[in-house]
Amino acid sequence: MACVEEPPEKHCWVCFATEREDRVAEWVSPCRCKGCTKWIHQACLQRWLDEKQKGNSGGAVSCPQCGTEYSIVFPKMGPLVYFLQQVDSALSRASPFAAAGVVVGTVYWSAVTYGAVTVMQVVGHKKGLDVMERADPLFLLMGLPTIPVMLVLGKMIRWEDYILRLWQRHSSKLQLLLPGIGRPLPRIPADGGHGGDHLSVSRTLCGALIFPSVASLVGRLIFSRIPSSLQRTVLGGIAFVVMKGVLKVYFKQQQYLIQANRHILNYPEREREREREGSEGGEDDTEDSGND
Amino acid sequence: MACVEEPPEKHCWVCFATEREDRVAEWVSPCRCKGCTKWIHQACLQRWLDEKQKGNSGGAVSCPQCGTEYSIVFPKMGPLVYFLQQVDSALSRASPFAAAGVVVGTVYWSAVTYGAVTVMQVVGHKKGLDVMERADPLFLLMGLPTIPVMLVLGKMIRWEDYILRLWQRHSSKLQLLLPGIGRPLPRIPADGGHGGDHLSVSRTLCGALIFPSVASLVGRLIFSRIPSSLQRTVLGGIAFVVMKGVLKVYFKQQQYLIQANRHILNYPEREREREREGSEGGEDDTEDSGND
Repeated sequence: MACVEEPPEKHCWVCFATEREDRVAEWVSPCRCKGCTKWIHQACLQRWLDEKQKGNSGGAVSCPQCGTEYSIVFPKMGPLVYFLQQVDSALSRASPFAAAGVVVGTVYWSAVTYGAVTVMQVVGHKKGLDVMERADPLFLLMGLPTIPVMLVLGKMIRWEDYILRLWQRHSSKLQLLLPGIGRPLPRIPADGGHGGDHLSVSRTLCGALIFPSVASLVGRLIFSRIPSSLQRTVLGGIAFVVMKGVLKVYFKQQQYLIQANRHILNYPEREREREREGSEGGEDDTEDSGND
Repeated sequence: MACVEEPPEKHCWVCFATEREDRVAEWVSPCRCKGCTKWIHQACLQRWLDEKQKGNSGGAVSCPQCGTEYSIVFPKMGPLVYFLQQVDSALSRASPFAAAGVVVGTVYWSAVTYGAVTVMQVVGHKKGLDVMERADPLFLLMGLPTIPVMLVLGKMIRWEDYILRLWQRHSSKLQLLLPGIGRPLPRIPADGGHGGDHLSVSRTLCGALIFPSVASLVGRLIFSRIPSSLQRTVLGGIAFVVMKGVLKVYFKQQQYLIQANRHILNYPEREREREREGSEGGEDDTEDSGND
């Protein structure tokens, strides 16, 4: 503390003015401080408070020296203002939840719509509409959004990786049946060859959502002689999943073999020779030139 | 560099084994390094590369000493593997855009639905369905989503703040008409009293989206004798906006006055006395006890 004795006249610790300099200014001694930091102009303290609160006009502020919290009084609020303040703060507290509700509702409604479109795609446009019109609305509102959820969950089952792991574990036994496949690898690649690429969120989502369209397309291409739209789409979906799975297992196994058979080459002797010649000719060379 | 002379026999700088210790191991000199760091086992370098690449099996790796990039060769890829790799990387590149499309589509579809619900709410359920069935589908797909957008944009116009600013600027003139309102303030609050609270995104969104329901409700409560649903809802909306605006301006002006009239109290003399007595009685006291 700069001084502990109280000076003979009041002295503002913000503007350093004394009582004599401004005889009308209001003085306040807002904290336990004594001595030369006891008194401050009401106006100077108000300015200093504004600075400290930085817009948060309800925040408590304490004296930086003695730690006493300033006692700030406000004029009495009318009942209407009090009511409006309560409403305002209730709305402020509720709005994040309401906004979250809007987002959830948006996603939910899109899931319902997607489910309805998928039903029409799988069983046929007309029959789909018929089925949904006859169904219980509550059942539709619960059932339709589960369609995209199930598609995404199904897409997250990485059965190809499981088959690949099985393949790699038993490839030595397969060697007898299919020579050349199970020959001993020069090394095991770092990622263990389990197709350990990360599950991409965007790819899983898009793949799951486009799957009914792909299944319908494949069904119409391969099983065009089946009259039932439902059977055709289901068979098309199974065919697509099997084809994609086989290609994926093949691709990952090939990637694994490529990594296992990588080889690091010697630095070319010719380059080395040329560099040595260059370094022997020049003067500005590294210390170890010509050492080998 | 630890040594510049090449030792008489090969020496792996990873496992420190020499040529004599393992006569079948493959050796490689992958970089410009000379001397004792020239040679390394192929297997040791492979392990070291795996460590450096950390799963990114295509990344380039250089010698930490001479900076030469290692020349890594892979077995030739078959055309099918090459094709699958191209497809895989194309899908990986496209999936973030597709996912963004899914999000945009979800928001768009919800906006269309919200627009349709709002039309039915404003002009009445049956008439709304009639209007939309007769309208051009393209016009509906373009027009309906603009309804929530317009509501949010309209909500962002803070006309109450403008009126409040006008009020505060001209309150000295109003003083003659309404005594007591425009009396000189003891101070100007820190936030300038312009209702400078931040525009809350969630509150703006929810307020905008709930506005048609509120307008319809207010219209039915106040203008129940008007038969047209459209007129009733429009009048209800206007009434709600005006009432809310008046309350908001009043509330903000009162908040401004409350802030302007805040006062900081003196630290109570009684507390000070009690503390002084306590400090004079005790021994373990601060240096400035009893100085005032």
